[in-house]
Amino acid sequence: MSDLSKGAAHVYGEIVPVSEAKISILDWGFLHSDATYDVVHVWDGNYFRLDDHLNRFYAGMSELRMSIPYSREELQQILSSCVKASGLRHAYVEMITTRGLPVPGSRDPRSCTNQFFAFAIPFVWIAPLQTGLDLVVSRKQRIAAESVDPRVKNYHWLDLVMGQYEAYDRGAQTAALVDRVGNIKEGPGFNIFAVKNSIITTPDKGVLRGITRKSVIELARTAGYTVLEKELSPAAARKADELFATSTAGGVMPISSIDGQIVGNGQIGPVTQRLKDAYWSLHEDPKYTTQIIY
Amino acid sequence: MSDLSKGAAHVYGEIVPVSEAKISILDWGFLHSDATYDVVHVWDGNYFRLDDHLNRFYAGMSELRMSIPYSREELQQILSSCVKASGLRHAYVEMITTRGLPVPGSRDPRSCTNQFFAFAIPFVWIAPLQTGLDLVVSRKQRIAAESVDPRVKNYHWLDLVMGQYEAYDRGAQTAALVDRVGNIKEGPGFNIFAVKNSIITTPDKGVLRGITRKSVIELARTAGYTVLEKELSPAAARKADELFATSTAGGVMPISSIDGQIVGNGQIGPVTQRLKDAYWSLHEDPKYTTQIIY
Repeated sequence: MSDLSKGAAHVYGEIVPVSEAKISILDWGFLHSDATYDVVHVWDGNYFRLDDHLNRFYAGMSELRMSIPYSREELQQILSSCVKASGLRHAYVEMITTRGLPVPGSRDPRSCTNQFFAFAIPFVWIAPLQTGLDLVVSRKQRIAAESVDPRVKNYHWLDLVMGQYEAYDRGAQTAALVDRVGNIKEGPGFNIFAVKNSIITTPDKGVLRGITRKSVIELARTAGYTVLEKELSPAAARKADELFATSTAGGVMPISSIDGQIVGNGQIGPVTQRLKDAYWSLHEDPKYTTQIIY
Repeated sequence: MSDLSKGAAHVYGEIVPVSEAKISILDWGFLHSDATYDVVHVWDGNYFRLDDHLNRFYAGMSELRMSIPYSREELQQILSSCVKASGLRHAYVEMITTRGLPVPGSRDPRSCTNQFFAFAIPFVWIAPLQTGLDLVVSRKQRIAAESVDPRVKNYHWLDLVMGQYEAYDRGAQTAALVDRVGNIKEGPGFNIFAVKNSIITTPDKGVLRGITRKSVIELARTAGYTVLEKELSPAAARKADELFATSTAGGVMPISSIDGQIVGNGQIGPVTQRLKDAYWSLHEDPKYTTQIIY
């Protein structure tokens, strides 16, 4: 038997170790990045906000005029089959629909049979847990919503990857990309929040509608904070008391410096800490979790 | 033996039928569309402008901070091994470099080993040869150069694919995408030219520097035409005497209608015909061709 404990994938109807999982080189999901995806995490054997992820995934497919032959229940079963095969109790579970291949000789996307793939891999932290992220505001513009709808979760990441290289060049770890007029949008895989005098601001236009973003907005409002979904300028971000990033990969992650300047006192701020604790507490609330029967 | 006559691919150091060629689902070339590529065509057993394609491919890798362990000569040998294995005398040959996979647990692109893939598939015409293309000017904006450098040939095509769907919805075959202020940029895999009173205009900013585009500009200038590389508005395109598209996939292709309105008299125009003939004549010029020894 192959080792599935480092991750298990569902490809072309089979469960295989993720390291051996391969997709056709001709799939438009690769050759045209013509795909949508979602990532739900599993924490202590439970999916977190699975319904929200499935809603977004099906909405993205619809927007891209893709479909899969699986009901939500069947899709969930496939995801769970990956998790169960791996035995992982803390995992990222990625679901992907690609355009597929057109019929030979055609370049008509309508002739494609859409393909579905999924995999479960171990949960890893994308940011150092104690110290937080060193972030720079990149000169790179995030791909505009007028080109690719950011609400449809997609793999158009070259701008984000090149922003990451810029961050390394400037002695940081990661980058926030901007829009045409210079406002902060998002980083590679995360939304951005600023806290100033207990008021919380996060960009709303031209960014992914992150599920963690949504959780944090809900938790902050419940805790009595004002949350503004509006433009965030680099100048405002630099003056913030606290900055943090949100992502399914890592949850609520403090940002400890911006453009080489320490945020607050360089330690995780009280609002960030409170929201981070509240976020992880949600993982014990049956309203937001779906148990996997291993 | 597997059938290679429908296309042969070089993946992970092996030559396989392209229909069986697969890449790792975890490669950032797929999961982040973090890749660059080029397509050279083979006509009657000869590469056309191979040097130009290789120059662009190596420049793109450098821009994306990727590298492959092959010299130009070795790369050419790999491409030729695909063509020879297939036996095809008219083919598209695609070469691809992807970021590869980061080391486990990392999201640092610098930890990735870049991967190289290639395949040769039969040459097909992407447009009807006699009648030309029915094109609409899409409302969709081509991904801006400030986000992803279009001179680095890349797979960020969701805007182009969605433009294609818009074209179908509007009763056409393909679409030209625009920039923020509405000027025409490019279509899915092709550059666009307009001819008015024997003056030829093609967009220069925010578009792929197509090798066929380059050939046509050179040929037109040699033939005494004025070629302007500058913005092309939809209004100017609609008033053109002739419109055509250029692509490695198909060469010089007449556009017979724009937004439902016939271009010229609906037949291939004299300038388009002349440039098309000149383009195909170049394929017999040893200066532009590289013979493959089968």
